[in-house]
Amino acid sequence: MTGQEHRHEARVDDLVARMTLDEKLSQLVGLWVGADAGGAGVAPHQSEMTDDGLRWADVIRDGLGQLTRPYGSAPVAPAAGARSLAASQAEVVGANRWGIPALVHEECLAGFAAWGATAYPVPLSWGASFDPELVEEMAARIGTSMHAAGVHQGLAPVLDVTRDYRWGRTEETIGEDPYLVGTVGTAYVRGLQGAGVVATLKHFAGYSVSRAGRNLAPVSIGPRELADVVLPPFEMAVREGGAQSVMHSYAELDGVPSAADSTLLTTILRDRWGFTGTVVADYFGIRFLQTLHGVAGSEGEAAGLALAAGVDVELPSVHCYGEPLREALARGEVDEGLVDRALRRVLTQKAELGLLDADWSPVADPDLDLDDEGSRDVALRLAREAIVLLTNRDRTLPLRPGARVALVGPLADDPMAMLGCYSFPAHVGVHHPEHGLGIEIPTLLDALRSTHPTVTHTRGCDVTDPDRTGFDAAVAAARDADVCVVAVGDRAGLFGRGTSGEGCDATDLHLPGVQADLVRAVLGAGTPVVLVLLTGRPYALGSLADDAAAVVQAFFPGQLGGQALADVLTGAVSPSGRLPVSLPADASGQPGTYLSAPLGRRTSVSSVDPTAAFPFGHGLSYTSFSWSARATSEEWAVDGDAEVEVLVTNTGDRAGADVVQLYLHDPVAQVTRPVVRLVGYARVELAPAESALVTFVVPADVTAFTGRFGARVVEPGDVELRVARSSADDSDALALRLVGDLRTVDHTRRLTTAVSVVPLHALEVTRA
Amino acid sequence: MTGQEHRHEARVDDLVARMTLDEKLSQLVGLWVGADAGGAGVAPHQSEMTDDGLRWADVIRDGLGQLTRPYGSAPVAPAAGARSLAASQAEVVGANRWGIPALVHEECLAGFAAWGATAYPVPLSWGASFDPELVEEMAARIGTSMHAAGVHQGLAPVLDVTRDYRWGRTEETIGEDPYLVGTVGTAYVRGLQGAGVVATLKHFAGYSVSRAGRNLAPVSIGPRELADVVLPPFEMAVREGGAQSVMHSYAELDGVPSAADSTLLTTILRDRWGFTGTVVADYFGIRFLQTLHGVAGSEGEAAGLALAAGVDVELPSVHCYGEPLREALARGEVDEGLVDRALRRVLTQKAELGLLDADWSPVADPDLDLDDEGSRDVALRLAREAIVLLTNRDRTLPLRPGARVALVGPLADDPMAMLGCYSFPAHVGVHHPEHGLGIEIPTLLDALRSTHPTVTHTRGCDVTDPDRTGFDAAVAAARDADVCVVAVGDRAGLFGRGTSGEGCDATDLHLPGVQADLVRAVLGAGTPVVLVLLTGRPYALGSLADDAAAVVQAFFPGQLGGQALADVLTGAVSPSGRLPVSLPADASGQPGTYLSAPLGRRTSVSSVDPTAAFPFGHGLSYTSFSWSARATSEEWAVDGDAEVEVLVTNTGDRAGADVVQLYLHDPVAQVTRPVVRLVGYARVELAPAESALVTFVVPADVTAFTGRFGARVVEPGDVELRVARSSADDSDALALRLVGDLRTVDHTRRLTTAVSVVPLHALEVTRA
Repeated sequence: MTGQEHRHEARVDDLVARMTLDEKLSQLVGLWVGADAGGAGVAPHQSEMTDDGLRWADVIRDGLGQLTRPYGSAPVAPAAGARSLAASQAEVVGANRWGIPALVHEECLAGFAAWGATAYPVPLSWGASFDPELVEEMAARIGTSMHAAGVHQGLAPVLDVTRDYRWGRTEETIGEDPYLVGTVGTAYVRGLQGAGVVATLKHFAGYSVSRAGRNLAPVSIGPRELADVVLPPFEMAVREGGAQSVMHSYAELDGVPSAADSTLLTTILRDRWGFTGTVVADYFGIRFLQTLHGVAGSEGEAAGLALAAGVDVELPSVHCYGEPLREALARGEVDEGLVDRALRRVLTQKAELGLLDADWSPVADPDLDLDDEGSRDVALRLAREAIVLLTNRDRTLPLRPGARVALVGPLADDPMAMLGCYSFPAHVGVHHPEHGLGIEIPTLLDALRSTHPTVTHTRGCDVTDPDRTGFDAAVAAARDADVCVVAVGDRAGLFGRGTSGEGCDATDLHLPGVQADLVRAVLGAGTPVVLVLLTGRPYALGSLADDAAAVVQAFFPGQLGGQALADVLTGAVSPSGRLPVSLPADASGQPGTYLSAPLGRRTSVSSVDPTAAFPFGHGLSYTSFSWSARATSEEWAVDGDAEVEVLVTNTGDRAGADVVQLYLHDPVAQVTRPVVRLVGYARVELAPAESALVTFVVPADVTAFTGRFGARVVEPGDVELRVARSSADDSDALALRLVGDLRTVDHTRRLTTAVSVVPLHALEVTRA
Repeated sequence: MTGQEHRHEARVDDLVARMTLDEKLSQLVGLWVGADAGGAGVAPHQSEMTDDGLRWADVIRDGLGQLTRPYGSAPVAPAAGARSLAASQAEVVGANRWGIPALVHEECLAGFAAWGATAYPVPLSWGASFDPELVEEMAARIGTSMHAAGVHQGLAPVLDVTRDYRWGRTEETIGEDPYLVGTVGTAYVRGLQGAGVVATLKHFAGYSVSRAGRNLAPVSIGPRELADVVLPPFEMAVREGGAQSVMHSYAELDGVPSAADSTLLTTILRDRWGFTGTVVADYFGIRFLQTLHGVAGSEGEAAGLALAAGVDVELPSVHCYGEPLREALARGEVDEGLVDRALRRVLTQKAELGLLDADWSPVADPDLDLDDEGSRDVALRLAREAIVLLTNRDRTLPLRPGARVALVGPLADDPMAMLGCYSFPAHVGVHHPEHGLGIEIPTLLDALRSTHPTVTHTRGCDVTDPDRTGFDAAVAAARDADVCVVAVGDRAGLFGRGTSGEGCDATDLHLPGVQADLVRAVLGAGTPVVLVLLTGRPYALGSLADDAAAVVQAFFPGQLGGQALADVLTGAVSPSGRLPVSLPADASGQPGTYLSAPLGRRTSVSSVDPTAAFPFGHGLSYTSFSWSARATSEEWAVDGDAEVEVLVTNTGDRAGADVVQLYLHDPVAQVTRPVVRLVGYARVELAPAESALVTFVVPADVTAFTGRFGARVVEPGDVELRVARSSADDSDALALRLVGDLRTVDHTRRLTTAVSVVPLHALEVTRA
């Protein structure tokens, strides 16, 4: 323990010993307050609060654990919001005996969710970039902005592993592979926390596995799938990222809601992984134990269950940890020691953030800018890296200079098409249209005009409206052009206001509305069609993918997504994104991702072929790469490393980036294993004719899985490491043999493959 | 132990002690032999056998455990088949030192799967009848036929609980509720075994929960869902039905294939439930451990895993329990004690069947009739009870005498439309069309002609072919009629030869082919349409259900299904079936059945509404019933019974049967609970104005569930018993309070609700 840690502990001990029960409980709740547009005041204004009849002065009398979303409830100019927040904090500090401010949290799923803050690509795009370093840079930018705005905790990253594409929150996930989610998510944690903002891992755990992809539906899952697919990203972000907060999931796993699950929130998270931060409630999640799950008969009972399981802070209400918990304590139904346990975590975190320092004072930068040029530059670079070229027949792309381009589709000239449901304009701004977006979001049309000033634009149809009257104009526009770019996809929104986003689940994976029919109609014009997909989930394209001359999958590329898309379409940038989710062939065969044991992918036993149309990891480039791969040894000690070297050469005539993927194939094991799973990857930027040596050092620990009797084991035997262009590529399979005795590995095991990328000229110098 | 059991044990002990290893292993395998059409001989003729180069004389030299499907491989006249089988048995007996015959097994999913045997309704129809007594009568008929044919073991019932309607084998299940599946399945076991034929519970366990409903796909499931939904029917059939054999499932649960799962096959099945019979392999399932699951590196390893887990008999091959097991034993990799364990079970079963008796000789009835009048009568009665009337607008049904009826649809005049995939004509006969069906199967057209001789018939389209050229004729026929009956649905078949059946999975729940369009076209004629569904799974009908004047769900009603349907349509019989599965509103929202915790059915949290179009338990009648329900006490001891009385009166003007359903609603529990689940039901036949008193005696044990920490508990607290017309009906909810301390119940708990139905006049006499 450092000297500082000793000081923090002493201070916390002192407070715990001296605080009244009311003061203690006040630290365990976060309340939702909002800034008005003028920033004149931060005041309790949520309906939940007025319903409860709470007044601000009463709320802060004994202190306040957290302030919920001061920027996220309504549009407010950043500097004005910061000023208001500082004023509120001064009131909080002044009201309680100990002068403790509230910890302030905000959403930051794809950027700080505040009016006027840079809107980055969504997590699905981070996954597509296969570039954790750039994601870390982005998160550092986000953290810096939040810190400057007086925010201490960000409610990201989402570490749910996509299991069913119908789920509306698929856009919020980093993809369908735990290794990709874990490595990219951990990079986000490092970036955010490096800027002084607590990261919050969510949703712990299993939320994405809900039945039929319906939001909050029960989860059917066994302990092995939980341990091997759902939990690894969280373990990585805790053990390697040092994440300081975790949010429980709304879901129930095999009948046990996560908010009441001590195995998850205490045994696994703290006892096994060594987590020392705070566990916070997903909004209203504690009360849901009573109202939605039926595992508690009252709010006090719900409070007792959650507190005992390990939920330290109720957000964003005092429904359970307020009066109901107080009464349950008085009746002796809940042990006050549990209150002290949670309190100690909350105060320790405040101490670490400096909130208990005598000289702490709220910040209020009068020039606060949440959308600076540096942030926008990162947003643009990430968007460029995250665009995936799925097909490109006859080198249709890049568009030729001077080509007559018809731009068609409901998303071609729509700034909102670039954003996911948790970006401020989509999440909250939609309720306050009079304030505008707060940021500039060039549309695809805007961006294409700079290189192709003659581009025409026809909407064709809406995302969801069934009206087809615009088809004819779109077909005519296509007919008059050399190439037709059709931009279709999702409208991100909350609960029924969109086709993707929280609560916007799908029953099947057909493109929403009549958009597929629009594409089909435009294809009929005979002009080559470039299909651009701005979507929050993968869709089944059917024959459209074959008939289009090129298909570009962009997910939600963020504020600079229009520019990035135009850069890729025109060839200013060679595409380098890779699919973080598969695109299914069938619109209704869910759930099912690439990560499956052999029988989940076998075609001979069922009339339904589950083979994806485009596999996880797939993505094309405008240049070409050759590979030469080898393992330095065929023997791989069960407690050692395998070393795989891949010489990558850009054999094309332009610069580009390749993504070398490494998959493990374990043909025989004591339990069924996925046919392949990702265990490493490297992004390699190369000029024409340039080469680089990629070295993967894979700890045998990475091959571990939950064995027949529940322990995590490294099993000796034959395996393959496949150096691959996608999860379906087995052309470069390296045969290795894990040697030694069956080894049980615990939660000190190594989780990640070390990767180095050395340009060949540098290598030659080194070796000379 | 009885004297007979002692004698059996002594005989088995003696054989185990004296048999050579080769003789022992020979008892653990069953081989697939077939009768040719002339019945001239039963000879090894399967490709698997010739591939293996096996000769009959070699196969039987040391004895033979089982003979596989002597009637089921090819059409053979029953008496000729029996003669051939007897000859083969004589050879088996003569070849081995101990004179032990083979145990002969056959399929009997919906009747003895032999050419010329009565084809009964499929299990989904048994579920729809809610009539275990009649199912038991049917099973007794089946068993009697099989016994007379020299067959000792039947590979039924299927006790899988439907979880995803896309699964092709949904038609083989009794429905989506474990209580219904368990009670009806147990009745089947009693009937079959009462006739001297061993019943085989399958598929143990979890097969129906395969991912996305794909045959053999991995199963995501936790221990609580397994214990509370999947296993109860098996426990009931073992503990209450005394089932003597169990077949493992092909599936893997959370990474562990059932064939290698000792927890399932030994700990739960034998140690907890007291099962003493044999566990047999699903065909080729042991080898699949190597070839499909990848949990064994060789056939010998697969044999060792299966034998250790508790699979006693390999079917229908010697791929693993032959030479590979012998070699593994020789290498010391498998303990010979495991061979003796399995052998003892096999020989004990043979002893119980009389196969070890000195005077045993094979039967060969020269007048063997597998389709006698008594059997056909049971088939007709069951089919009548199993037809479900879903809607009946303006009393469209029953059809008026003299009405001009247009009969339309690909299934209107097709005998095969009545049969599921495991009926002989669909399962095997389809390969031998020259032999005919072997039984008479009146079509719906045939049957309707007797009451409505002017009925016209137009096919309209095929089940799967997209050709619509027949639509116009169908519309014209409808236009010329007073009422149009449209019969659409599934074609049952194996692996890609059908739209329902083993390996014939669906990705969505739209009616196959262009049949929905045919119905839509016919509706356009303006004539009232009666939609008749001959299907192996529930389909989403969308607006067709609203626009049709009446909808009749018939599943696959068997050989006399055409007659039964005509009886219901014309009013000779009042419909009384109830849905054993829900009909979903959305074609793509799977998986999802009525049995779900609150969040699985809640509509406010997701844009997707999972509410069924027609709920589990729904079904109409031509007459009407009034109910008066009460609980004899509001207090219900946690170790006692609740008594619910329902006075049912036929308030209509014709005879009919009502199905009184009892559901448990448990609003607060330590884990999430289904909103409702079936805990009792009674079929009540009443003449007009007649009444009956239905009494349910519900043991508190029936409310038990797997608690937070894995034990099965009866939890005190408020519950409701809902006397209901379907799972969605909460109009007659009786509030009760379970009183006492939380009670842990083990595997001696009571599993079923006692039901009595006493006609009111009888009751009055009794009470007088």
